Amino acid sequence: MAGGVEIERKFLVDAIPEGLEWLDERALRQGYLALDGDTEVRVRDDAGAWRLTVKHGGGLRRVEEDIEIDARRGASLWELTEGRRVEKRRHRLALGAAMLEVDVFEGDLQGLVVAEVEFDGEDAARAFSPPGWFGREVTDDGAYKNRALAVQGRPT
Amino acid sequence: MAGGVEIERKFLVDAIPEGLEWLDERALRQGYLALDGDTEVRVRDDAGAWRLTVKHGGGLRRVEEDIEIDARRGASLWELTEGRRVEKRRHRLALGAAMLEVDVFEGDLQGLVVAEVEFDGEDAARAFSPPGWFGREVTDDGAYKNRALAVQGRPT
Repeated sequence: MAGGVEIERKFLVDAIPEGLEWLDERALRQGYLALDGDTEVRVRDDAGAWRLTVKHGGGLRRVEEDIEIDARRGASLWELTEGRRVEKRRHRLALGAAMLEVDVFEGDLQGLVVAEVEFDGEDAARAFSPPGWFGREVTDDGAYKNRALAVQGRPT
Repeated sequence: MAGGVEIERKFLVDAIPEGLEWLDERALRQGYLALDGDTEVRVRDDAGAWRLTVKHGGGLRRVEEDIEIDARRGASLWELTEGRRVEKRRHRLALGAAMLEVDVFEGDLQGLVVAEVEFDGEDAARAFSPPGWFGREVTDDGAYKNRALAVQGRPT
């Protein structure tokens, strides 16, 4: 978000209430090709648009390079990520002024549902009052990050 | 080589003789971004043309995907390969009917010179008589493969 600080809060969802009006819904999946020290290489399919990402974090040097790849290469590389995948359907919903994303996980993570709300700044994030159907907040819980979910599976 | 079996033989070179007429010469470098089990991810700069390659070998499944990337991304990713690089100048020479490549290594591998000869088939490879300035043959020596040179350095 240009000029602003993007802040997200993340909550578990036990059951999605009936009658919500989704703005849209799409299939997302990502898998890890290689995890080596502070470097990870992943492939992502966002509703048919494939990207290969090399991410390095740690110490002073942070690099993230995102490379568009065609669907044939995407599918070929996807085969190499078995056992280290996150697959979900992402539903978007307007929640007052905020945009809500509800990720319904599939595959090995079936049964997990996570809601993310994105805010323009810290004040808005603090002021947010979660609706009743939100469960435990997991914003700072490393076990719910994509890489952890992919490698370690659903937290128990 | 379409329809044929490409065979290479590789030799160490102690000193390149004077007066050889190179066909051409170019700078080549490659570095390893991630090594994870049977999967390797490397970035390669062939005279200014950058490629990212994901290679998986082992067992029944072999995959190699080669992706062109722009020079900005190439340089950014190159920074992540420190300590796992192979840098060389490749000289090409016609040697009778065969094509000879002489790689003069630089950087951490400075001092190493390797000649590779490529043949159309096994008969030609067996019949090849190395010129006097070729040293020990290292065709089957794993320590002279790119990945080993990058990770372990010059064999002692």
